[in-house]
Amino acid sequence: MTTVREIRLKSRPRGLPTRDNFEFASVDLPAPAAGEVQVKNLWMTVDPYMRGRMNDGPSYIGGFQLDKPLDGGAIGEVTVSNDPKLKAGDLVQSNFGWREGFNAPAAGLTKLDTMGLPPQTFLGAAGMPGLTAYAGLLKIAALKDGDVVFVSGAAGAVGQIVVQIAKAKGHTVIGSAGGPEKIKFLKEIGCDQTIDYKAEKDLTAALAKAAPGGIDVYFDNVAGEHLVAALNVAKPFARFALCGGISMYNATELPPGPPNLMLMIGKQIRMEGFIVSSSWDMMPAFLRDLSQWVKEGKMTWKETVFEGLDKAPDAFIGLFSGANLGKMLVKLG
Amino acid sequence: MTTVREIRLKSRPRGLPTRDNFEFASVDLPAPAAGEVQVKNLWMTVDPYMRGRMNDGPSYIGGFQLDKPLDGGAIGEVTVSNDPKLKAGDLVQSNFGWREGFNAPAAGLTKLDTMGLPPQTFLGAAGMPGLTAYAGLLKIAALKDGDVVFVSGAAGAVGQIVVQIAKAKGHTVIGSAGGPEKIKFLKEIGCDQTIDYKAEKDLTAALAKAAPGGIDVYFDNVAGEHLVAALNVAKPFARFALCGGISMYNATELPPGPPNLMLMIGKQIRMEGFIVSSSWDMMPAFLRDLSQWVKEGKMTWKETVFEGLDKAPDAFIGLFSGANLGKMLVKLG
Repeated sequence: MTTVREIRLKSRPRGLPTRDNFEFASVDLPAPAAGEVQVKNLWMTVDPYMRGRMNDGPSYIGGFQLDKPLDGGAIGEVTVSNDPKLKAGDLVQSNFGWREGFNAPAAGLTKLDTMGLPPQTFLGAAGMPGLTAYAGLLKIAALKDGDVVFVSGAAGAVGQIVVQIAKAKGHTVIGSAGGPEKIKFLKEIGCDQTIDYKAEKDLTAALAKAAPGGIDVYFDNVAGEHLVAALNVAKPFARFALCGGISMYNATELPPGPPNLMLMIGKQIRMEGFIVSSSWDMMPAFLRDLSQWVKEGKMTWKETVFEGLDKAPDAFIGLFSGANLGKMLVKLG
Repeated sequence: MTTVREIRLKSRPRGLPTRDNFEFASVDLPAPAAGEVQVKNLWMTVDPYMRGRMNDGPSYIGGFQLDKPLDGGAIGEVTVSNDPKLKAGDLVQSNFGWREGFNAPAAGLTKLDTMGLPPQTFLGAAGMPGLTAYAGLLKIAALKDGDVVFVSGAAGAVGQIVVQIAKAKGHTVIGSAGGPEKIKFLKEIGCDQTIDYKAEKDLTAALAKAAPGGIDVYFDNVAGEHLVAALNVAKPFARFALCGGISMYNATELPPGPPNLMLMIGKQIRMEGFIVSSSWDMMPAFLRDLSQWVKEGKMTWKETVFEGLDKAPDAFIGLFSGANLGKMLVKLG
């Protein structure tokens, strides 16, 4: 019998989540049944999309239940196997995050081939956030030669990959993020122009200065004023990939939308929302391209690591104040 | 020498235009020079898009100049020709609206083949508004089998054609318009469900009732609350063609955008603004389809006609209070 701790949703956050919304519990794991394995988690992810799952009412992926463990991406190591498919020591990828370990049918787990990368990369650059960047830029925004690309949240888990895919493909890239440390990072990964939105009073003016000829593609992780500025500075036939709206996730009342949305008509702008689960089929192509870019020195990434399950709520809450440079992760083992 | 009257922009409207913004002037037309013709206008069009051209600052088609004649679509009859390309009595289509007649090079005019339709049809159902409906629905919204289609401004120049194209192609169509006369017309042209927005307090509730399974396509002529409702009731992967925002054209301050715009992410909605001039290449296909639908009794249309150039400002201003059923036209000859 092994005892592990897990985190449950104690109450639904109103506005910004607090530690009080989370509850820690200990659960006993029996020896795994036939066909099952026992897994010790090494890493778990916290992602902005989880905020929506904490609300009551419908969510595009099932909402979290009160008093039940939260879930989300995790990388773990098989400690005991009762199935020939996996053996002790194998690394597995699962959706059983927010806990130190678990028993589960081997058939439902993905054995991880790390391709020589650190395993936690598959929760970030080589995982869901990386594929989000790839699909959003290539499929949704339909990136084409010569496009000038604007990315908000550019120093975050998704944004950092967007910047570098666009640069690897030869584009002019404008990245927005908050604070000098992030801006420094954006320059390191090749942004042609950067906007420290915390230092700007007028985002439209800042973007117009950074992109005097206008933008062709906007990859939106932020919504709010960034979306307003992107509409103002968009060229005709610009394409906007709407990936996230972190500026709005904790709003207790829906803030108004962009007052200049009607610019979409005259400028013939296309705007498309997307979620990565519609693009899993692009994962093999993404991993091929990613490996190549890594080899060529065109792709790197940052991680911000909180240590231990105790810190998981803080890591999650920190997403909304921009406490992360690159991917926010929790190291469990 | 012939004297004709024309209408000039005397002052830029602030908010809803008034007659004071327009000025009537008489101009003398000499005999047409070599290569020119003289045309007596029979019909002119007033369209909502002209409101944007009355503002100062950039417009997606050139703004109107103060103290210069307004322009826009017109159908006229050649009275004197000094070019072998056209002869007296020929019908021509031009952009020299807002005036009783004009001299112009024959090379710049389109001789009108009415295909047996009344000539003014080419300012409406068989002209720019018809093509707008066709391109918006088939190209921008990428209408596909089984789509449930919602159209706002459905009894207007564009909307009436949208409704009937969608019906001719076998779709379920929900049309919104203001007042019982328009609702009656929407039923006559085949709308499966209608919404009298002037009689509804909660457009989302009304639309959800009209389309219990949600909508796949939204053809937006109105913006504002209609767009909010469409986002709320959209199915996953819905496509929105943004054609116009008549509820906002006279706003003196930009009203806030839809507070629920972020629904586009979870629902993976695509929204695209368009202007018809990008789709002139579809005109031959549209006219072929239109002729066929007319023959099959699947396409009809309404016109609201104001008589005489004196009434042109009233016709234009009336667009913004929904004074038109179908296409708003001014009969000049």
